[in-house]
Amino acid sequence: MTLPAPGSTARTTIKRIPDRAVTDRDAGYRIIDAALMAHVAVVIDEQPYVMPVACARDGDSLVFHGSSASRLFKALGSGTPCCATITMLDGLVVARSAFESSMNYRSVMVLGRAELLEGSEKAHALDVITEHLMPGRLADVRPTTPQELKATAVARLALDEFSVKVRVGGPDEPSEDRALPIWAGVIPLMSSYGPAITEANVPDQVPVPEYLKNWRP
Amino acid sequence: MTLPAPGSTARTTIKRIPDRAVTDRDAGYRIIDAALMAHVAVVIDEQPYVMPVACARDGDSLVFHGSSASRLFKALGSGTPCCATITMLDGLVVARSAFESSMNYRSVMVLGRAELLEGSEKAHALDVITEHLMPGRLADVRPTTPQELKATAVARLALDEFSVKVRVGGPDEPSEDRALPIWAGVIPLMSSYGPAITEANVPDQVPVPEYLKNWRP
Repeated sequence: MTLPAPGSTARTTIKRIPDRAVTDRDAGYRIIDAALMAHVAVVIDEQPYVMPVACARDGDSLVFHGSSASRLFKALGSGTPCCATITMLDGLVVARSAFESSMNYRSVMVLGRAELLEGSEKAHALDVITEHLMPGRLADVRPTTPQELKATAVARLALDEFSVKVRVGGPDEPSEDRALPIWAGVIPLMSSYGPAITEANVPDQVPVPEYLKNWRP
Repeated sequence: MTLPAPGSTARTTIKRIPDRAVTDRDAGYRIIDAALMAHVAVVIDEQPYVMPVACARDGDSLVFHGSSASRLFKALGSGTPCCATITMLDGLVVARSAFESSMNYRSVMVLGRAELLEGSEKAHALDVITEHLMPGRLADVRPTTPQELKATAVARLALDEFSVKVRVGGPDEPSEDRALPIWAGVIPLMSSYGPAITEANVPDQVPVPEYLKNWRP
């Protein structure tokens, strides 16, 4: 079965600046795969709540975890509609006018109802999240206890209905603005990890793991 | 009149890991002042939508802008309840277990109904956003035209009801975990601006502005 393309439903069609819409599913997956977190919204008593969660992609789904006792995961468990949005800022777009100044970004917005996972599906999704955020780490950590597993909620939101929007490049300005003697350009925004800070109670003979070098924000 | 503290309503009381709750309004303002964007949610036909917006703080309000024709700003203009969440990730917290591994972050969640600004209030809020994102830039740009002003929607969301949550420091682990011969620590996450990329059509005699050096993501 072919999965629907991003932006293919009325709710996910990008109407504002449609040339920023991306309809390639793989391109959307690459954005998710580059993200550490999503902002997830649920509605409780007509009030939307937006909360940040650590996330990862597991096949054709977004998975994310939190506390079983949290408002967010209780609501998700009731099958309420939710939205998960991932945004990565890539730079400031500095035009000759404030109006045409903008930001470069990659974003994905997923609509649907999440499912709280249990049993082996839950354990698998937790491993996917850990491996996504901290590649190579799973082999080192002590196993999760049944009590910890119970305290953790893991949600799966299928990537069935989602949109992908990307802005790249310099300012998009009318020709009369381009003739003005004003500087214009792009200031790239970069994320990076700093050097590892070892906990004071780690014994001297325990080295900083090699796999940390491969971690990318 | 004294403004209410963050987290002082039932809807904004932080129940999960309450020692991460911050009740100092100024601390919340500092987080907003360090942010480039917020994720704003509105509910349309029972479905929440979360969209990223460039934002700034104007006194005791959060202001953000977008296209007048966008779904988000049309909904905001109708007075529907909204939520704006700001999250900045500061690092990966690498514990000896996956369960206690976490992220360091600063976050603010604002609840309420936004107001779309008009006239001089709108122009002022736009200047505040420009000055926040690109300090010093306002003096250089060509003025916004009435047509551009009309195409832009600016929302103001009062910082009346909001929560502030912050995690700092290393892993918080049980003593039996701290005795394990496994590395643990924090990987700081940093954002920075790269060197300015000048548009090809900027004349040679127009230099890169000095104020760019003061820009911080």
